[in-house]
Amino acid sequence: MKPLYVIKIGGNIIDDEAKLSAFLAAFAAIEAPKVLVHGGGKLATRMAEAMQVPQQLVDGRRITDAETLRIVTMVYAGYINKNIVAQLQAAGCPAIGLSGADGDVVRAHKRQATLDYGFVGDVDAVNASLLQKLIEEGQSVVLAPITHDGKGQLLNTNADTIAQETARALSEFYDVRLVYSFEKRGVLRDAQDDESVIARIAPADYTELKEKGIVSAGMLPKLDNAFAALRQGVTEVIIGNAAELPQLVKGLAGTRIVHE
Amino acid sequence: MKPLYVIKIGGNIIDDEAKLSAFLAAFAAIEAPKVLVHGGGKLATRMAEAMQVPQQLVDGRRITDAETLRIVTMVYAGYINKNIVAQLQAAGCPAIGLSGADGDVVRAHKRQATLDYGFVGDVDAVNASLLQKLIEEGQSVVLAPITHDGKGQLLNTNADTIAQETARALSEFYDVRLVYSFEKRGVLRDAQDDESVIARIAPADYTELKEKGIVSAGMLPKLDNAFAALRQGVTEVIIGNAAELPQLVKGLAGTRIVHE
Repeated sequence: MKPLYVIKIGGNIIDDEAKLSAFLAAFAAIEAPKVLVHGGGKLATRMAEAMQVPQQLVDGRRITDAETLRIVTMVYAGYINKNIVAQLQAAGCPAIGLSGADGDVVRAHKRQATLDYGFVGDVDAVNASLLQKLIEEGQSVVLAPITHDGKGQLLNTNADTIAQETARALSEFYDVRLVYSFEKRGVLRDAQDDESVIARIAPADYTELKEKGIVSAGMLPKLDNAFAALRQGVTEVIIGNAAELPQLVKGLAGTRIVHE
Repeated sequence: MKPLYVIKIGGNIIDDEAKLSAFLAAFAAIEAPKVLVHGGGKLATRMAEAMQVPQQLVDGRRITDAETLRIVTMVYAGYINKNIVAQLQAAGCPAIGLSGADGDVVRAHKRQATLDYGFVGDVDAVNASLLQKLIEEGQSVVLAPITHDGKGQLLNTNADTIAQETARALSEFYDVRLVYSFEKRGVLRDAQDDESVIARIAPADYTELKEKGIVSAGMLPKLDNAFAALRQGVTEVIIGNAAELPQLVKGLAGTRIVHE
């Protein structure tokens, strides 16, 4: 099968114009087919403040009420998504920006939990067949973290989850590598030492790292999700710094999470 | 060639939830392939007020400065476009919402004029080949009035023009009917009488209507554009009220602008 990259960038890059610009140039330069999934960043929070929409927090978690959903739809699926696409086009990378509602590419349902998160979606299905057609047309799909429930309701949805579900669904057609870019250079042996990147983690290594208490608590859910993605058909998960994207996709930087 | 409808709705429908909902149900029910082009509406103005962004007017014309461009990108390509798409999906109409930057579907350049309109785009090219592929996948494309210049700049662009250029470009592949829906029931013989709709205008009729001073000054640019669209390959232009969409597409309401 052909290789394909699903690459997720977080809000810390989106908020930094110079970093985002460098990242998009590196993304455009990747020759293999590729999908970009972006998170939100601080613009939505600033917008909510400017519009005097109070942020609702319950037990420390942000609630997506109707007004907040309106703002994140505007900022994520409008401003951020379209600016990324326009920049990719300028870099010679044909790109098409979509929310989950567009082409029904990511369908979700409103989260059912004891705590009412508001208009937050948990992913049910990714339309891999339409994504494949766009990819085969030479388009890089740029996904915003907004989904829909098929009944007319838009939903705020975690970008990490969208990246994982998209990678999983596209594994039917491609040899998929899933890249999570974040502020650290990879999974670290020593949280205080940025040079202590663990280059490669297979399931046996992970068991050992957990037993020895080497991996930080914050990394555990990320790694659990990475191994879940591998079990669902993804070839490799790469975790590292967005500034090192060219090296990450070549396996020369970051942490590679592998089958064995 | 297969029939296809390019249908433009204006801000007055977008601003009215009940009217928009009825319109989208009627749009979803059209069996032929179809493209929807939507305008802006008052939400962008309300957002600008809420965020205390002053509206710049020069000689009575609104200027799209950088902050206004950010707002219209959010509102048109984000909020309005994604809500329309989600509603169409709910009505069983597969739909994909795009700005002009997405898939390079509508490329424009910043307007060069004595008066600086700011970030306003005049259309250069429509990517009819990608639109055709999406349409043949069964998707109704929903276009927001935001374009790009291919160099990374998004541009605020007139929805009537996008509809016309899209209809023209798709005439290469389809028998295109272009529907402009607005607040009147069609071109009126008597501006005061909503029942005085002129059912059909061919070029010879238009010359006569102009000579007799029957058509109102406000309708002249619309009709000039309609005849320009016909010369560019469009089969028919239909002007009428969005509330009568099912009748408009059947030629049973509104004004049909025809070749002869």
